[in-house]
Amino acid sequence: MTDVVATYYFRPKEGVSPDWAARAIAEEQTTGTWTEISTRQNYVRYLDGRIGDIIPTGQGYTCSITYPSEIFEPGNIPQYLSVVAGNLFGLSRLAAVRLIDVEFSKDIIPFKGPGYGIEGIRKLVGTTDRPHVGTIIKPKVGLNPKDTAEVAYEAAIGGVDLIKDDETLTDQKFCPLNERLPLVMEQLDRVRSESGRNVLYAVNISTAGDKIVERAREAVRMGANMLMIDVIVCGFDAVRAVAEEPGLNLPIHVHRTMHAAITRNREHGIAMRPLCRLVRMLGGDQLHTGTVSGKMEHDVTELRGDNLALTEPFFDLKPVFPVASGGLHPGGVDKEIRLLGRDIILQAGGGIHGHPDGTRAGAAAMRQAVDAAVAGIPPATYAQDHPELKRALDKWGIAN
Amino acid sequence: MTDVVATYYFRPKEGVSPDWAARAIAEEQTTGTWTEISTRQNYVRYLDGRIGDIIPTGQGYTCSITYPSEIFEPGNIPQYLSVVAGNLFGLSRLAAVRLIDVEFSKDIIPFKGPGYGIEGIRKLVGTTDRPHVGTIIKPKVGLNPKDTAEVAYEAAIGGVDLIKDDETLTDQKFCPLNERLPLVMEQLDRVRSESGRNVLYAVNISTAGDKIVERAREAVRMGANMLMIDVIVCGFDAVRAVAEEPGLNLPIHVHRTMHAAITRNREHGIAMRPLCRLVRMLGGDQLHTGTVSGKMEHDVTELRGDNLALTEPFFDLKPVFPVASGGLHPGGVDKEIRLLGRDIILQAGGGIHGHPDGTRAGAAAMRQAVDAAVAGIPPATYAQDHPELKRALDKWGIAN
Repeated sequence: MTDVVATYYFRPKEGVSPDWAARAIAEEQTTGTWTEISTRQNYVRYLDGRIGDIIPTGQGYTCSITYPSEIFEPGNIPQYLSVVAGNLFGLSRLAAVRLIDVEFSKDIIPFKGPGYGIEGIRKLVGTTDRPHVGTIIKPKVGLNPKDTAEVAYEAAIGGVDLIKDDETLTDQKFCPLNERLPLVMEQLDRVRSESGRNVLYAVNISTAGDKIVERAREAVRMGANMLMIDVIVCGFDAVRAVAEEPGLNLPIHVHRTMHAAITRNREHGIAMRPLCRLVRMLGGDQLHTGTVSGKMEHDVTELRGDNLALTEPFFDLKPVFPVASGGLHPGGVDKEIRLLGRDIILQAGGGIHGHPDGTRAGAAAMRQAVDAAVAGIPPATYAQDHPELKRALDKWGIAN
Repeated sequence: MTDVVATYYFRPKEGVSPDWAARAIAEEQTTGTWTEISTRQNYVRYLDGRIGDIIPTGQGYTCSITYPSEIFEPGNIPQYLSVVAGNLFGLSRLAAVRLIDVEFSKDIIPFKGPGYGIEGIRKLVGTTDRPHVGTIIKPKVGLNPKDTAEVAYEAAIGGVDLIKDDETLTDQKFCPLNERLPLVMEQLDRVRSESGRNVLYAVNISTAGDKIVERAREAVRMGANMLMIDVIVCGFDAVRAVAEEPGLNLPIHVHRTMHAAITRNREHGIAMRPLCRLVRMLGGDQLHTGTVSGKMEHDVTELRGDNLALTEPFFDLKPVFPVASGGLHPGGVDKEIRLLGRDIILQAGGGIHGHPDGTRAGAAAMRQAVDAAVAGIPPATYAQDHPELKRALDKWGIAN
């Protein structure tokens, strides 16, 4: 059996030594508690957490804790979280504590991982190595199914590879899933016959864990070609359940709304990296990790590490397509590709539908920005004979 | 239709006005985005979020945002969260933002709430108004089923009303659920025949959302009299799915491991109060909210408010039994009851099994501490003719 190694950053409260703080974490998460107990049997000792080197870092320390494989119930993700990310966050000996990374062992990964991964999705769309362009249908909520499908058509014919619902659009009365999905797919069929291009639509099936597989089945029956799951609010197992369900066989676009309640504080909570590893283990094919030029808080170094966790070798699990999204527009594309590479989905909502000439021109502008970056041509130069890109850059400028 | 009102604390970044910051939240969570878009139809306007008064608070501001009922998909909790607690946490205009409270409207509460609530659980145990005493079997993990049941017997015969598994104990090889549960129930039967007292055992059924109802059914078949669910790692819908499942009819003890990754920072994330309301809506009968004297970080005012959210009138939903747990011992009982009242479960793990004379004496000491507080007798006085309490107070002291 191979053990599981979790790495924590922590800042002890005044008067608490780093050793004592690390021991508080290791004990709370394995076999100990705050006081000696009479019921502890000697035979439980093999389940103790083992504390690694304690290394001064920033205002606090980092240290790894090694958890024996046997402490985990194979396949039970809520239980995995309760060990590596459970009570420790509340310990009053610590001023702050953050789970930075987890190396899961092969023993506790009885999961198949992504069904498609980057390569599989590239095959569906027909690309080899350029970044993909995605869009979110906007406004987030409120459009009726017909107008939703119309926006999807405009974006697709304009050049996007992926269209997704926004996270708050699921199956409300103003836009029922069973009306929206067939109409959007009809428009994407039209795009295929008009342009020969295959565009994916990540329909948002986010709902309760006991209902999501049924909703996925319905979506498949209605002709869906991709499914979207919001992993923090639905839970990690929602991704696994849908990925493992026989007969679905669709790529899964994983969104992460609410994550920043947990991930944003650099000293406390859970970093994105362990969440990336979980999504990959459980079968997400695409995962939002953030942008380097958008409306959401980000840290370039951490973001690159997160994308690496999705794509570096990890047992036999396929790489996950990182999604950069949130306030992105054509003027940010060059920077995104420079800093994050080509194996990325560049997603723009406002940055496409906010184009002065509408959605189709906005989609074209995003694709032109990608083509420019791939060809190594500065966006301003490329824009000289690409009017859609020029109009976008004039409106939003170019991110450095 | 009645609207849903969420209250946020936020601290804008330098150069961002509070108005602009509040608008960023309202737009991101309803129909807007960071830029004007061409696809917005006039008819979506009724879904806009409405911003309330912006009130200076601490280093930042509080303000309410009113969400129209129609924006929610009735019964879809992940979707509710994506609206009231979704992307906003990452907005780079804000240095920090915290969801403080949510008033859900009756329109979007198609849930039955707690099946038992405080009164129902008091009936099962046979109490009228004294605080209940609970224990967590310790060590957290590692004991075999026989030793687990032995600890349960000692605690129950010593006087506890409730026994629960620790959060990391689910169904591992060293202590399979289908061996542990029958043996513990056998010991609790023995306690009933010896003492006439009915003791509850919250067996931890925490697992994936697509499997938890089946695990609950198995537990019922094996004679369980209570179920435990860890709501943050399992998801809110796990509680609802088990609460609504016909034929189970057991009270649900709700634990909240990992919550402090989200709730601890007073300026960012999600306060416990909205989570309390969700657990109550979805059918939890008991919920951990914290102690005023234990090992976990806490704030007395906020904690009392959280307990109020569990117990104050809330449509026709039964009150939930608050659980104080985490580093509690007999010397803390008086303070807990003084500050939190009698409708509370006082739970001690180390504070019972760490008693110098063992688990049975530890359980007796906790009950004696409760009896003293209820009779209005100072613990030190009561300890004079209650040796178990005396030994505990000598070891751990009395919290002020």
